[in-house]
Amino acid sequence: MNYETYFQNNRERHLAELKEWLAIPSISALSEHKPDMIRAAEWLAEKLKAAGLEHVELHETEGHPIVTADYLHAPGKPTVLVYGHYDVQPVDPLNLWTTPPFEPDIRDGKLYARGATDDKGQLFLHIKAIEAIIKQEGSLPVNIKLCIEGEEEISSPSLPSFLEANKDKLATDAVLISDTSLLEPGKPAISTGLRGLCSLEVSVFTANTDLHSGTYGGGVPNALHAIVSLLASLHDEQGRVTVEGFYDGVPDISPLMKEEFAKLNFNEEQLRNSLGLETLYGEEGFSFVERTGARPTLELNGVWGGFQGEGTKTVIPKEAHAKITCRLVGDQDPADVLEKIKAHLHKHIQPGAKLTLKDGEKARAFNIDPSDRMLQLAADAYEEVYGTRALFTKDGGSIPIVETFSRVLQAPAVMMGFGLPDENLHAPNEHFNLENFDKGLLTIVSYLKKL
Amino acid sequence: MNYETYFQNNRERHLAELKEWLAIPSISALSEHKPDMIRAAEWLAEKLKAAGLEHVELHETEGHPIVTADYLHAPGKPTVLVYGHYDVQPVDPLNLWTTPPFEPDIRDGKLYARGATDDKGQLFLHIKAIEAIIKQEGSLPVNIKLCIEGEEEISSPSLPSFLEANKDKLATDAVLISDTSLLEPGKPAISTGLRGLCSLEVSVFTANTDLHSGTYGGGVPNALHAIVSLLASLHDEQGRVTVEGFYDGVPDISPLMKEEFAKLNFNEEQLRNSLGLETLYGEEGFSFVERTGARPTLELNGVWGGFQGEGTKTVIPKEAHAKITCRLVGDQDPADVLEKIKAHLHKHIQPGAKLTLKDGEKARAFNIDPSDRMLQLAADAYEEVYGTRALFTKDGGSIPIVETFSRVLQAPAVMMGFGLPDENLHAPNEHFNLENFDKGLLTIVSYLKKL
Repeated sequence: MNYETYFQNNRERHLAELKEWLAIPSISALSEHKPDMIRAAEWLAEKLKAAGLEHVELHETEGHPIVTADYLHAPGKPTVLVYGHYDVQPVDPLNLWTTPPFEPDIRDGKLYARGATDDKGQLFLHIKAIEAIIKQEGSLPVNIKLCIEGEEEISSPSLPSFLEANKDKLATDAVLISDTSLLEPGKPAISTGLRGLCSLEVSVFTANTDLHSGTYGGGVPNALHAIVSLLASLHDEQGRVTVEGFYDGVPDISPLMKEEFAKLNFNEEQLRNSLGLETLYGEEGFSFVERTGARPTLELNGVWGGFQGEGTKTVIPKEAHAKITCRLVGDQDPADVLEKIKAHLHKHIQPGAKLTLKDGEKARAFNIDPSDRMLQLAADAYEEVYGTRALFTKDGGSIPIVETFSRVLQAPAVMMGFGLPDENLHAPNEHFNLENFDKGLLTIVSYLKKL
Repeated sequence: MNYETYFQNNRERHLAELKEWLAIPSISALSEHKPDMIRAAEWLAEKLKAAGLEHVELHETEGHPIVTADYLHAPGKPTVLVYGHYDVQPVDPLNLWTTPPFEPDIRDGKLYARGATDDKGQLFLHIKAIEAIIKQEGSLPVNIKLCIEGEEEISSPSLPSFLEANKDKLATDAVLISDTSLLEPGKPAISTGLRGLCSLEVSVFTANTDLHSGTYGGGVPNALHAIVSLLASLHDEQGRVTVEGFYDGVPDISPLMKEEFAKLNFNEEQLRNSLGLETLYGEEGFSFVERTGARPTLELNGVWGGFQGEGTKTVIPKEAHAKITCRLVGDQDPADVLEKIKAHLHKHIQPGAKLTLKDGEKARAFNIDPSDRMLQLAADAYEEVYGTRALFTKDGGSIPIVETFSRVLQAPAVMMGFGLPDENLHAPNEHFNLENFDKGLLTIVSYLKKL
């Protein structure tokens, strides 16, 4: 039976299985979901065994388990290591989900659930592609290893040391990752760059108690005034980060790269419309793909303080908080960037307010040369299934572990994504377009056969 | 029995009764507390009857009931109308309360509960002073009327029309209000000015969904960036409001007023220490009492948007919100001030962000001449009990209804407060110092006898 027919025949079963997995709320950031993390890892191990993979193991870590497996019956053929993650982002604001995040629902050819595209849904394709080949042909045309973690959304604290400790066992000719997107429907893309990441929590404290705005208003510092002017000082009016030295290590966009970006022929107007925006916004002099692919950014992810209820409360809040993440490019050093932001914040905090800062993640940006054979074969596989050759792009997101994998295992990372840019990852109503579920299975089969 | 002995003998009963009342969570701003509002009003009516007051009535309004009562058995003597409110502020952040806000607790001579000082505790003094005189002497030396509302903390929407409709019934020679503070322990004060108030809710919207900061960061507007720069634009670095025309109608502080303020001999150092602040903060060129007594202010009471949970969430939020209140002085027109702020916000909102604004309260500032006989007698009563004559102050807070009472009933408002400035009204751990509970009872008895 050809693979198209095989996947068609098994489609219902595959989706039912994936829904089971998506129903487990494996939110790595929230400690109350620890038992769900274990359930999600065990579910995964079961399915790897069922697919025909061998040496399926759950490795305890200080955080959430790492799952490994292999199938090494193609001597003389290349080895591919599949990486993915079974953890997902938090789900709030919950009221903005049309259907609950952990009750997977198919509507209009899309599978809605937290993790549908990032990354359970995409990782699931590899398991089912492998299962299909083994079932149809009795064996795989290459050697396969899998290394799946449950801490990607909290910046993979356990994986680097695990890789170091197991680098011989995990030795490979390529790391295969599906955790990125097509450019747009029908237009596959292979990411040859990922931005780095660093994060910071900011707290501002003023008086030792909330105060009445009548008795004290105008005469004491207000933590909210302090934090909004502090945070506003981080960007200029053109959206450029004003932190001194923030852009150190950011490479200029070369004429060649400009050309590559232009080739994408990205439709900014369409993006603007789909997001319901009057205008896109960002650093002057750069296009959207340049801003998100080749420029660093500093984003406020959360700000809060004072009264958030119904009605009026005439209070002067004693504290206010913010969460910041930066996406980094080129040689920007995340630790150095954090130090520079902290210096900026200490310099700009208003009199009478105290500052508490807490470091979070730190990951460097990653880049790979698109002429690598493993990448060129991936582009061929896409072309076979999608009828159009994959473009080589720079992805704005961060998968901090990609740089580590590539460095520790000395192997190229092949980022073969099947998501779409508008699938609301990290947001309410995350979903996975089933057209790419179907084509993804075929593309992976094709790729493994080409190697 | 002298009144000191009487109040000493009845102290336990009085405090037990007050605690009962404070245990009712009569938060007027939150609709789920509607039944508690009725319970609090009914409790009050019971106690008014028990005190010997007559014609106790609950008047339905579109919001919460108004309670009235009287005792008119002193022909030829002046009439005093006591005003107060039985509603309280919301209580969040709940985790900052040492004991729960609606489980009244006495510690170190202070009664802790939401409403302990604002205003149930202070209003309660009038009921018990009246009860004491009737019990001890069989009658009152003046005619008394009471008009108590349950909507003070939401700006008294029902009371103005109630006053207009009942102005003959409520006719009085003075309106007596205990909803303000001593200057500091042992230093009584009579407020001769209250600031006006206006409020505004601000919402900023960007994309139609939350977005991933990797895929979109740097290329789309972030509602949090938009709101922090917008809110930061409302003040300059010296804490002065930058809204064009905001200070229209604000009178200069006259040399005489400067003298009055100086007489207060206010200890800024002590305030700074008690609030745990490195420095006070406000408009250049003004002292703390001038800033809060004679200058308008614009305060952020709440700001929120995006992720507030544990860990990191790399999200670009689609919306952000803020609550603003202004305290007004002199001839500032609250409606006009709101229009000017709105114009400022519309002018300063960044490209790609949409603004939604919602008006709230609007109340003018109030002022009275301290030479009024009703005020001078109040100062005498304080002197008798506290051993020191009350100073005439300008209060930074707003009791919007005072201006209305004074205008509709054509009577002076006597603001005889028994709170202290550090009693955390509108904040966690609100409390009422029992020294002023005891002295307040005696001061009110003394005042009623002097009239």
